[in-house]
Amino acid sequence: MRLSLQPSLDPAAYRYVHHVRTRFAETDAMGIIHHGTYPAYLEEARAAMLRENGFPYDAVRAGDDGIDFAVLELYVRHRRPLRFDDLVAVHVVVEDLTRTTFQVGYLLTVDAEVRATAVTVHGAVDARGRPSRMPAFLAALTGPGD
Amino acid sequence: MRLSLQPSLDPAAYRYVHHVRTRFAETDAMGIIHHGTYPAYLEEARAAMLRENGFPYDAVRAGDDGIDFAVLELYVRHRRPLRFDDLVAVHVVVEDLTRTTFQVGYLLTVDAEVRATAVTVHGAVDARGRPSRMPAFLAALTGPGD
Amino acid sequence: MRLSLQPSLDPAAYRYVHHVRTRFAETDAMGIIHHGTYPAYLEEARAAMLRENGFPYDAVRAGDDGIDFAVLELYVRHRRPLRFDDLVAVHVVVEDLTRTTFQVGYLLTVDAEVRATAVTVHGAVDARGRPSRMPAFLAALTGPGD
Amino acid sequence: MRLSLQPSLDPAAYRYVHHVRTRFAETDAMGIIHHGTYPAYLEEARAAMLRENGFPYDAVRAGDDGIDFAVLELYVRHRRPLRFDDLVAVHVVVEDLTRTTFQVGYLLTVDAEVRATAVTVHGAVDARGRPSRMPAFLAALTGPGD
Repeated sequence: MRLSLQPSLDPAAYRYVHHVRTRFAETDAMGIIHHGTYPAYLEEARAAMLRENGFPYDAVRAGDDGIDFAVLELYVRHRRPLRFDDLVAVHVVVEDLTRTTFQVGYLLTVDAEVRATAVTVHGAVDARGRPSRMPAFLAALTGPGD
Repeated sequence: MRLSLQPSLDPAAYRYVHHVRTRFAETDAMGIIHHGTYPAYLEEARAAMLRENGFPYDAVRAGDDGIDFAVLELYVRHRRPLRFDDLVAVHVVVEDLTRTTFQVGYLLTVDAEVRATAVTVHGAVDARGRPSRMPAFLAALTGPGD
Repeated sequence: MRLSLQPSLDPAAYRYVHHVRTRFAETDAMGIIHHGTYPAYLEEARAAMLRENGFPYDAVRAGDDGIDFAVLELYVRHRRPLRFDDLVAVHVVVEDLTRTTFQVGYLLTVDAEVRATAVTVHGAVDARGRPSRMPAFLAALTGPGD
Repeated sequence: MRLSLQPSLDPAAYRYVHHVRTRFAETDAMGIIHHGTYPAYLEEARAAMLRENGFPYDAVRAGDDGIDFAVLELYVRHRRPLRFDDLVAVHVVVEDLTRTTFQVGYLLTVDAEVRATAVTVHGAVDARGRPSRMPAFLAALTGPGD
């Protein structure tokens, strides 16, 4: 288990925030957003962070390096459920960058109320799925910023 | 973080195995099963275990207790990717039953090769989402069995 | 088959437009957005149209009427694929309102290029799934507007 | 609109049947299987039909031809809802094979009760998404069989 990041409950500890509106398709028969939907929210927030920082994920994938950020580990803690039509603030921070992996912490809030925290651990892989060098731009995205 | 279970890589440590055939709809542009699909595989295996042990989940939900097993925490470790049309053996064991929570460990294999391990932490909630007593039958399902 | 609406390729024939950013989770091993994702895009656009016209869908569901707009029929025609990170304009128009059903037409474009058209046929149902009166506000939303 | 097949309500009109157990993850807040899930059920049944007839879809995709059966059109008619834990019989028949397209009809039943009918229209495309010759084996799979 590489996962070591402890996601903060304080939005100030995060560099970036992305908003997701929950879909009715994502609810389940308990009337809440199904827990299996959260990985897609986290991924959408990661992609938005890269795009807004000048590194759109599809360009990263198509570039000379042709790399993907494979998900090695995923952890989600559900504190209060999300419901249909909630506007979710997904706070994102990159931490623990090593030569082969990095970790991303997430805080999900609705109207400033904490709903969930999460961590993903990523490795860079090339187009054939083999481990690859971590792209240099990630260092500039690490931590909560100034 | 309540999650404490360390999922074994040995199938003998699990009580139950359920098979899932991966769907093309579950692949992504990396050519592998998207990591966001795994929670649905784990849930399907939990439901199959309950059904085959005489406690179909829809009856549990509709019964006098009317309880659901809410997912409090989820952890997945991806060791090797799954691909389209793989027949995945999802090994399941219930552990760490307390008065308010239990943990489920998972080992995912294809042709006896390890692909992923996972843990979910659950609490019992009533139809309004409030914490509820843990149903008695869970004790009989705990551990790897005889 | 109640479905009769012929969705136009001209955005001017639609009353409302909602934008959806495709997710990586929604791609498949062909490298395109999986066709099974489109119903969720259509539904998200319907919900956005209702919300922006003062009838948020969760309020419609929770109100005295407690109604849902069940999907009776769905038709999608794929003209060109969507890809990851596309910003999709989903044009929406309500048509063919009867006492028990209405139809919704959709035009999906990316940078003004047509990608897909679709139609859904809906009936109003109450909380138990039984057919219900169509809410009066739908008449005001029907057609392309002024 | 190429779609012309009228799916029969009689299981005898179909060549093949594949069973799918619905997942809790596929339910929605109306307590039924979300309509956006049905395309995945249809696709799983198509893949099972190909596999059991000696043409596993991943081999078709990886072969010399390297073809995919792109979905050009999709139509689903919902007659009665599916619920969690239903064991759904998806009846499948290939019809209307032309040089560039074929249509697949579906009948979804639970305990012999009709729940939905559906049609998909497919074209063969190569690895770059360009139209390709239809593989010869499809002719042998067309129609309800003997």
